[in-house]
Amino acid sequence: MKIALDAMGGDHAPEEIVRGALEFLEEPEHRDVEVILVGSEKDVAPLASASRHWGTRLQLVHAPERIGMDLAPTEAVRRFKEASIVVAAGLVGSGQADALVSAGNTGVTMVAALRAFGRIRGVERPAVATVVPTLQGPAVLCDVGANVDCRPSHLVAFAQMGSVYAEQVLGIPKPRVALLSNGEEENKGSEVVVAAHAQLKELAGLNFIGNIEGRDIFHGGADVVVCDGFVGNIVLKLSEGLAGAIATMMREGANRNWRTKLGALLFKSALFELRRRMDYTEYGGALLLGAARVCVISHGASNAKAIKNAIGVAKEAVSRDVTQIIARMAQERVVTEI
Amino acid sequence: MKIALDAMGGDHAPEEIVRGALEFLEEPEHRDVEVILVGSEKDVAPLASASRHWGTRLQLVHAPERIGMDLAPTEAVRRFKEASIVVAAGLVGSGQADALVSAGNTGVTMVAALRAFGRIRGVERPAVATVVPTLQGPAVLCDVGANVDCRPSHLVAFAQMGSVYAEQVLGIPKPRVALLSNGEEENKGSEVVVAAHAQLKELAGLNFIGNIEGRDIFHGGADVVVCDGFVGNIVLKLSEGLAGAIATMMREGANRNWRTKLGALLFKSALFELRRRMDYTEYGGALLLGAARVCVISHGASNAKAIKNAIGVAKEAVSRDVTQIIARMAQERVVTEI
Repeated sequence: MKIALDAMGGDHAPEEIVRGALEFLEEPEHRDVEVILVGSEKDVAPLASASRHWGTRLQLVHAPERIGMDLAPTEAVRRFKEASIVVAAGLVGSGQADALVSAGNTGVTMVAALRAFGRIRGVERPAVATVVPTLQGPAVLCDVGANVDCRPSHLVAFAQMGSVYAEQVLGIPKPRVALLSNGEEENKGSEVVVAAHAQLKELAGLNFIGNIEGRDIFHGGADVVVCDGFVGNIVLKLSEGLAGAIATMMREGANRNWRTKLGALLFKSALFELRRRMDYTEYGGALLLGAARVCVISHGASNAKAIKNAIGVAKEAVSRDVTQIIARMAQERVVTEI
Repeated sequence: MKIALDAMGGDHAPEEIVRGALEFLEEPEHRDVEVILVGSEKDVAPLASASRHWGTRLQLVHAPERIGMDLAPTEAVRRFKEASIVVAAGLVGSGQADALVSAGNTGVTMVAALRAFGRIRGVERPAVATVVPTLQGPAVLCDVGANVDCRPSHLVAFAQMGSVYAEQVLGIPKPRVALLSNGEEENKGSEVVVAAHAQLKELAGLNFIGNIEGRDIFHGGADVVVCDGFVGNIVLKLSEGLAGAIATMMREGANRNWRTKLGALLFKSALFELRRRMDYTEYGGALLLGAARVCVISHGASNAKAIKNAIGVAKEAVSRDVTQIIARMAQERVVTEI
């Protein structure tokens, strides 16, 4: 299996990206995976060439251009044909690699991926599914991408695709799928959510448990939380922001006096554990569901560990045939609709 | 000034509700306020009759019925004419009281209030505005109520009314008003949000600062955060849920070993401070903006302190003439639209 890794995407590229690839390749259970680093040769080669896998399981494909960040994603992808993300997506599109991993701009990655290898037939709207930590373990939140105004059928597809992600990649059997709404009753929600609820209830092969409220997400009330990309974006960023604000207040609190300073010191191991459980780098990135090939979008702030885990998600998605499973589902849906 | 207090509404009614009223009346700066307790005489009188204000600044109006919780709000209000919330709203509608305060069901309170004293002319959709804590102090979030599917003009009205709340009740001069969206750029957001942005930009007399993302709410990026009731509900409950999940993890963390136990003990004062800053009871309740009289909806879990503060919000809203100011705004808006 070959994974194309955008070595230039992300806040800590290329150093942390390359390091993530090296760490991934060192783990014995990944012996069957090759990583293709895509990026500027003079920036990337010095970071990678000392590896014992260099030239065998670790390759480099040169991509000299850097994408201008002030452009709209479609414009950027069209103009910079030699940018690392465009070249990496192209390798997957032409079959030279099986999956794409990038920590670059989400919009640009989506556009580059969909241009290079397109959508699965029958999937109207590819969606970005990410993993959020809960008290019961990881859960999938879908969509957190660009699908801002959705129809009920889009939410239904997000539910199905999210369920495949949870089951195949996270290994959750019969994932509990819920629709995010402002109340648990089936008549609660926007018009679109209420209509999606009615459709999901009738759907075979999905463990749909009804609506979930915002307060239950982090308590692990569902394994897959379905919403449109507008709400998903707000949920994700709000959670990051609130967790950050609480951390800031705790730091301020710790610095109050010697008692709180000592307390914080002794309490530290518990706080580290808390941070570990809330840490996105443990989960490695979001999956672009509905694309015809596997595409993992890692957090812009990704460090080596996050990249290593993102490559792991890509590997899992390829070996569990996530794309094929979604394609079969989409086909059945089309047949049912006719 | 007279405030009608639903003594039977809320998880801890009537004990905590009555206690909140008693505490409020004891504070010297509230000498000009009378509280009318509305509820079952045999339940409420024993809790209140020992007060030195009993019969003077503390009155009781008997309301024998309890609302069945399994009914839809409109149905419940229609059927239970002798329920405390219906009687209390009636007192405000008939001019016997200046404001309504309840910790009962939000939907029921809204329906009872709007049936008893209606909306301000020109306000299409009354909205529920609540106060959320941020690193920079309190901010207003509006709507968190029942307005699930909104038009752009509704969001514009929420922005204006929320700004009045922040300025008059919270005392924030020229409050910074922002639209909650999935990106800061003005072309980011759902169709409705993008259209509302365009209208808000052109509006005189409002300190509109553009879009705000989810991550900036708790960092105090705006004084008024505007969204539809679907998103507002999710934001509010998600925040409660995440803060609760973090608290649970910290408790678990504290119990790991003697070191973390001692640490937690020493760190406690800082955690109390954190809890105080995140505590909704400090802020006392949401305001039903656009109703023709002042109506404060307190959290269902309200304790005496939350009720005391809710009565305080009602007093402030009445004395600062919030309803009049919103009525003038609505009239100007109607005139402009013609």
